Amino acid sequence: MAIDYQKLKNWPFRPIEHAYTAKDSMLYALGLGFGADPTDRRQIDFVYEEGLKALPTMAVVLASPGFWLKDPATGVDWKKVLHGEQGLRLHEPLPAAGTVVGTTRIDEIVDKGAGKGALMYSTREIRDKASGKLLAEVASVGFLRGDGGFGGPEGASRKPQPIPERAPDASVEISTLPQSALIYRLSGDFNPLHADPDVARAAGFERPILHGLCTYGVAGHALLKLVCDYDAARLKRMDVRFSAPVYPGETIRTEIWTEGDGRLAFRCTVPERKTVVLNNGYAELRA
Amino acid sequence: MAIDYQKLKNWPFRPIEHAYTAKDSMLYALGLGFGADPTDRRQIDFVYEEGLKALPTMAVVLASPGFWLKDPATGVDWKKVLHGEQGLRLHEPLPAAGTVVGTTRIDEIVDKGAGKGALMYSTREIRDKASGKLLAEVASVGFLRGDGGFGGPEGASRKPQPIPERAPDASVEISTLPQSALIYRLSGDFNPLHADPDVARAAGFERPILHGLCTYGVAGHALLKLVCDYDAARLKRMDVRFSAPVYPGETIRTEIWTEGDGRLAFRCTVPERKTVVLNNGYAELRA
Repeated sequence: MAIDYQKLKNWPFRPIEHAYTAKDSMLYALGLGFGADPTDRRQIDFVYEEGLKALPTMAVVLASPGFWLKDPATGVDWKKVLHGEQGLRLHEPLPAAGTVVGTTRIDEIVDKGAGKGALMYSTREIRDKASGKLLAEVASVGFLRGDGGFGGPEGASRKPQPIPERAPDASVEISTLPQSALIYRLSGDFNPLHADPDVARAAGFERPILHGLCTYGVAGHALLKLVCDYDAARLKRMDVRFSAPVYPGETIRTEIWTEGDGRLAFRCTVPERKTVVLNNGYAELRA
Repeated sequence: MAIDYQKLKNWPFRPIEHAYTAKDSMLYALGLGFGADPTDRRQIDFVYEEGLKALPTMAVVLASPGFWLKDPATGVDWKKVLHGEQGLRLHEPLPAAGTVVGTTRIDEIVDKGAGKGALMYSTREIRDKASGKLLAEVASVGFLRGDGGFGGPEGASRKPQPIPERAPDASVEISTLPQSALIYRLSGDFNPLHADPDVARAAGFERPILHGLCTYGVAGHALLKLVCDYDAARLKRMDVRFSAPVYPGETIRTEIWTEGDGRLAFRCTVPERKTVVLNNGYAELRA
């Protein structure tokens, strides 16, 4: 079944209400490895209810429509879908607990041609339920590898953030745990690829892989540490391309290149395997 | 204010209903360090919803009345209370998710004399709400260091399980994580002693300590591994004395001595500090 461009472009997402608690916020942070130094107050602030703060990247797990492309009516060959890119714009610090409403829209579906797949750009607005205030916009790019040539607009893919040739201005290594994916998935993405050794092997991996969005959260941790002094309110924007999976237990090195005016480029690698896992990272900070 | 023996002995506990989910059971297991080898199916069974099993020691966090001794009407100097012993009798395997009802009673309060404190023996029965079936009995001994000499029965303390002089028959080391207490506390014991560096220092510890019941759960993991082949239904009874705290990140070595008829003695130490942390352990297994 091929994609019906108009139908998919105008997919009728319903607003999703998501009530989350302080415990949920702490669990999200623990899934990223926060608290690995239990005497470091700046990390404890995200995993302890007294004065609890929410991590900015938690927006990616709030009010998500889930893996809706599995619905046959989308016409998408969902088994061939890859999560290509992730972006986030933060307008207000997320409350440590609260009720939000997420509304997803498809921004564009770019047809790369038959045999070449398609790129689907979508955005989820996350608003505080009580005030209606826009807290965050979560942008995602899906690579629909099996769905090119449906007669949709060719358009241009967005231009990725270039990574400078020069040495990075700063870097930090953050360890994940062998059980990181098992902890992270309790924040809502229960895809068995991240827990079941048999499912992982069937998908071509030697063992369960870390969620791309967990790696994304670890990169967010690195930015908070390197350039925000753990002030969650300072992160304004954070965009990445996923380039390879991380195995739970591996170390993630985040390198940054400051570009002035609070803008920076970044990239994440797994040093043990000399592999780039997040590429073309772009972030903006508030002063 | 002194203890009123009759009043405390007959403390009017109300039944506590506790609905828990598969996610709660997985989180409890993750707090004990399960999933540290994410390719080990026997551990994955306790942290993955497909075919999920509940750990027997999870009974200690179900339908708990919490730290009710803080109520001034008990007459207990609660700041001087130590958790002395923990016991558990398992009648049925715990469901991986369900609703249980816990009913606590005080079995006895032994008066050791003025300046010597008192020992409070209590038991919580945990029943399946729907069937009324008795699942587990959770026994606890509180050492009320500030409350001796209230004119209560002298009685004899229970005789502790002796640990044989001979070398242990088997042993296993299980690592905790630096953030183990932070994960474990999400199962319900939010005492800041296990999360807040300042609170821990004020209590005389160099940093937050692991929950005694987390150490107890790790010992339960060791028994499952050493003598139950991870069959949760086989553990029938498990009693310990707490002798010293564990710091998150330390390794816990459990040594066992089999004594025939499915009975065994066990002890836990932290090899790094050559310190016994759980002593006089006694367990019974089903055939």
